[in-house]
Amino acid sequence: MANSHIYSPFDEELKYLARRIAEMGGMAEQMVSDAVRALVNSDSALAQRVISEDVLMDEAEREIGDKAILMIAKRQPVASDLREVIGSIRIASDLERVGDLGKSNAKRVIAVQNTGVPRPLARGIEHLSELALFQLKEVLDVFSNRSAEKAEAIRRRDEEIDAMYTSLFRELLTYMMEDPRNITSCTHLLFCAKNIERIGDHATNIAETIYYMSTGENPTGERPKDDNTASVIQPVDQG
Amino acid sequence: MANSHIYSPFDEELKYLARRIAEMGGMAEQMVSDAVRALVNSDSALAQRVISEDVLMDEAEREIGDKAILMIAKRQPVASDLREVIGSIRIASDLERVGDLGKSNAKRVIAVQNTGVPRPLARGIEHLSELALFQLKEVLDVFSNRSAEKAEAIRRRDEEIDAMYTSLFRELLTYMMEDPRNITSCTHLLFCAKNIERIGDHATNIAETIYYMSTGENPTGERPKDDNTASVIQPVDQG
Repeated sequence: MANSHIYSPFDEELKYLARRIAEMGGMAEQMVSDAVRALVNSDSALAQRVISEDVLMDEAEREIGDKAILMIAKRQPVASDLREVIGSIRIASDLERVGDLGKSNAKRVIAVQNTGVPRPLARGIEHLSELALFQLKEVLDVFSNRSAEKAEAIRRRDEEIDAMYTSLFRELLTYMMEDPRNITSCTHLLFCAKNIERIGDHATNIAETIYYMSTGENPTGERPKDDNTASVIQPVDQG
Repeated sequence: MANSHIYSPFDEELKYLARRIAEMGGMAEQMVSDAVRALVNSDSALAQRVISEDVLMDEAEREIGDKAILMIAKRQPVASDLREVIGSIRIASDLERVGDLGKSNAKRVIAVQNTGVPRPLARGIEHLSELALFQLKEVLDVFSNRSAEKAEAIRRRDEEIDAMYTSLFRELLTYMMEDPRNITSCTHLLFCAKNIERIGDHATNIAETIYYMSTGENPTGERPKDDNTASVIQPVDQG
């Protein structure tokens, strides 16, 4: 869109892609947020709704991908126009994965329902999810405004989510050690927390794609995609 | 490549992409296999090698992506030629993620080293990894030969990996319940097993991309990307 070519059907098509991506983004946010709410409130009806919504995300990704490829074939865009189209495919793919992760959390609601989620753990999951959702919301705003600098800032903030995830990881291990009856439900919560951490990664991927769309460059500097729990040997507090 | 256009520089470039993807595939297989070997043998030197190799995968993905976009801008391919180029971007991205998952498993070697991996669990992890590697190898073979039917068969076989993963998931929970001292290391092994299950998903993604490259269609029918452990309420055998 930054290009100086005259207003054209191609611009209309780009706008359509951007609108569909914004819609996917809104739905992804809702799914992630609802899944966590379903989890902490043992709300299996809400969980079911999240699960059934995932098919809409799959369809949207497919439609955006098909449309984008048709645009390349028909309009043969180059430079920033081409990057816009390729970037749209990538972002739709990341958002579809965010929807999957929301669905995956919703599917664990039943397994966790028997024991419920202890209050401090629920708060931890909620807080982690707020961080990831904030990241996702920011990145979708940046997508509307196309600021390469802001995209770069979001990319760096993923560390905050990783730190929160590591702390929750330790806390969950502690609960499991305190009472083996917590093991099954805490294992599910561990995977939920990991899913939320991955949602943060996808937001960061999207920030990188936006940076690329705006500048034609990939952002420099290492961005660790893996979490920091790999080396956790034992919880700080064994109760 | 299935197109009837005359032999051209574009064909040369497509061949180059295919060769780079095959190289990435070979490296991904090696990383996944080495990471599991490092895990079951507590071999931290091997783990370190896997971790350091990941940067080569990142570079390869970036190079393939840049090259592909340059090809689109310069050659303006349509139909199956365009699908080949777009498909290459997608496959490189899946292979890069497989490398990440191998690296993620390698990073857990230190955490598991203290307790070691009990023999039956080691065998379970090895078996799961063999299934995923077989799937990955098959899909890379199909990538060389472009058989849409074979790609479809691979896509369906992902269920075998999911079943094996669910069984390992239950077994790990049982170990944790039997002795809380197993909790930390078994949690790491759970994540390793999940990573391997995800490698199977990426192989399936690649099969879908190959199907799309060959036919221009997305494969039909639901393919569950999530695992089946979400509803595991308690292990079959509590010891």
